[in-house]
Amino acid sequence: MKGFGVAEGHVAWRDGDAVALLEPGDALNPLMGRGPAAWAEARARGEERVARGDVLPLGEVEAVLPFAVADYVDFYSSLEHATNMGGLLRPGGEPLLPNWRWLPIGYHGRAGTVVASGTPVRRPQGQRGGPDFGPTNRLDIELELGFVIGVPSTLGEPVPVDRALEHVFGAVLVNDWSARDIQAWEYQPLGPFLGKSFATSISCWVTPIDVLPRVPLPAQEPEPLEYLRTEVLGFDVPLEIELNGEVVSRTNARHLYWSVEQQIAHLTSNGARLRPGDLLATGTISGDEPGSLFELWRGDRFLADGDEVVLSGAGLAEVRGTVVG
Amino acid sequence: MKGFGVAEGHVAWRDGDAVALLEPGDALNPLMGRGPAAWAEARARGEERVARGDVLPLGEVEAVLPFAVADYVDFYSSLEHATNMGGLLRPGGEPLLPNWRWLPIGYHGRAGTVVASGTPVRRPQGQRGGPDFGPTNRLDIELELGFVIGVPSTLGEPVPVDRALEHVFGAVLVNDWSARDIQAWEYQPLGPFLGKSFATSISCWVTPIDVLPRVPLPAQEPEPLEYLRTEVLGFDVPLEIELNGEVVSRTNARHLYWSVEQQIAHLTSNGARLRPGDLLATGTISGDEPGSLFELWRGDRFLADGDEVVLSGAGLAEVRGTVVG
Repeated sequence: MKGFGVAEGHVAWRDGDAVALLEPGDALNPLMGRGPAAWAEARARGEERVARGDVLPLGEVEAVLPFAVADYVDFYSSLEHATNMGGLLRPGGEPLLPNWRWLPIGYHGRAGTVVASGTPVRRPQGQRGGPDFGPTNRLDIELELGFVIGVPSTLGEPVPVDRALEHVFGAVLVNDWSARDIQAWEYQPLGPFLGKSFATSISCWVTPIDVLPRVPLPAQEPEPLEYLRTEVLGFDVPLEIELNGEVVSRTNARHLYWSVEQQIAHLTSNGARLRPGDLLATGTISGDEPGSLFELWRGDRFLADGDEVVLSGAGLAEVRGTVVG
Repeated sequence: MKGFGVAEGHVAWRDGDAVALLEPGDALNPLMGRGPAAWAEARARGEERVARGDVLPLGEVEAVLPFAVADYVDFYSSLEHATNMGGLLRPGGEPLLPNWRWLPIGYHGRAGTVVASGTPVRRPQGQRGGPDFGPTNRLDIELELGFVIGVPSTLGEPVPVDRALEHVFGAVLVNDWSARDIQAWEYQPLGPFLGKSFATSISCWVTPIDVLPRVPLPAQEPEPLEYLRTEVLGFDVPLEIELNGEVVSRTNARHLYWSVEQQIAHLTSNGARLRPGDLLATGTISGDEPGSLFELWRGDRFLADGDEVVLSGAGLAEVRGTVVG
């Protein structure tokens, strides 16, 4: 993969196993906020250093969070995932709620517990499906793509859907670790909170958005409202979940229903502003195969202490994490 | 009121209408992170400057956000408010959900749209109770107290309920502006999002926590689980909502059900860490009189363009905002 990150106290460019240091800094945010011309210039400098071998080996570089997360928003943009979860959480009811096809459902997660790939994930305690406190019995993962905002927008000024991509600096993989028993008990009426806020792991390197191949997403029915209406393009990114060295599910970001442009247009439609470092995750990406273990194993099994999960995607830096009891 | 804020590019101490500049800085976060001894020392310097008249008049100082908001969490800790809202949003059902008396329900809000008192609030657009896009017809306010975290905690280490207050730097008033039509349509299953994220106004000055008088909160039934069990103390802070110069509701923070210590213990029970600048709001404070206009007017009326709302509370800096169409 190719992308920006932080290494040895410097903004850095990675190409495969080579890391070129660019300028002192402990986060990408200042570069991200400077916009596309600055990104292209930094990338050209990185590529030039890689070409002349002025690099460090990736293995010698400590894995760190590449940017300071401003607001973290998690969407719910996979039709297959929303349908699967509705069936599991509200058996007997209509799996898809009436609002789902009209807007990209999302919520704010905890920015302060977004951690770098490789950070061990401690099994959280909480109220497990009722007033019963202890370590979660239903620890799960969610395989997601995350879009990183570079160019800010102005408070009170919605971003038009056809200009939305201009704000995106790049993409990472996201593992939105989830404690399903805690989540099921707490989430009504205000949504997920402690079932998600203990850890969210992301790639240590951010892939420039123009590196990822685009592809039309599945047709949207009904036709979206005007502020969401556009050519609906996603990313053709094959994705894998590996558990203890074995691939347990394969999917692709091209199965998503809502696009990142639509997510940004929706998020800012009420005047909310974007800041450099905002992280917009797609929600679990399910397709023919699911993006969570809850969907894969239908609740019969969850993660055990010591389990290691690796998420990978073509062109993206992996996300790795081991469960600690 | 007495408290810390930012004025003329300096960390500052306010006492009534006098503002003493302390040291260069554009946010309180560094001071907040240094802990109680540093807070006391800064306050003593402020009081000394006020005593010798080395001050600016408050009226000459621009109102700015006093700290950079890290994560913004909004709780739902008033029994009266939760009961009123349940009745309004789910008529015919049980107003209080089964989890409410077992844990302090909360969710993450948008940190990037927390604004300083005095910032005009633009009426947001959105999907108004269905796939119908336009300016909200149901613009409301929520009167809340907000606790500002100073001392951070460590990822993976829950904060015990009896040590929770040690992390709190001070308190502000919060107006959690809400678009009820947008909220009602979007909030299932992941909670409030665009119905709240367009603006949250807070006081420009942070009151040290030890200035506010403490008082036992109403008895909790059932007895809380062990990690939430403590002497349940709140704050005796009379509160008012003023609309266009007329007081329309009076309540008091002593009516809350869950305490800030319990909110912090719950928030960190899964290992989530606190950061300097985390803002923990109580949720709407209702009592004999309500903390929102939705509850006051039962849906018959909402805010009009040009309406000015001022929240005030004993010992706290006011929160002022005017609706702009």
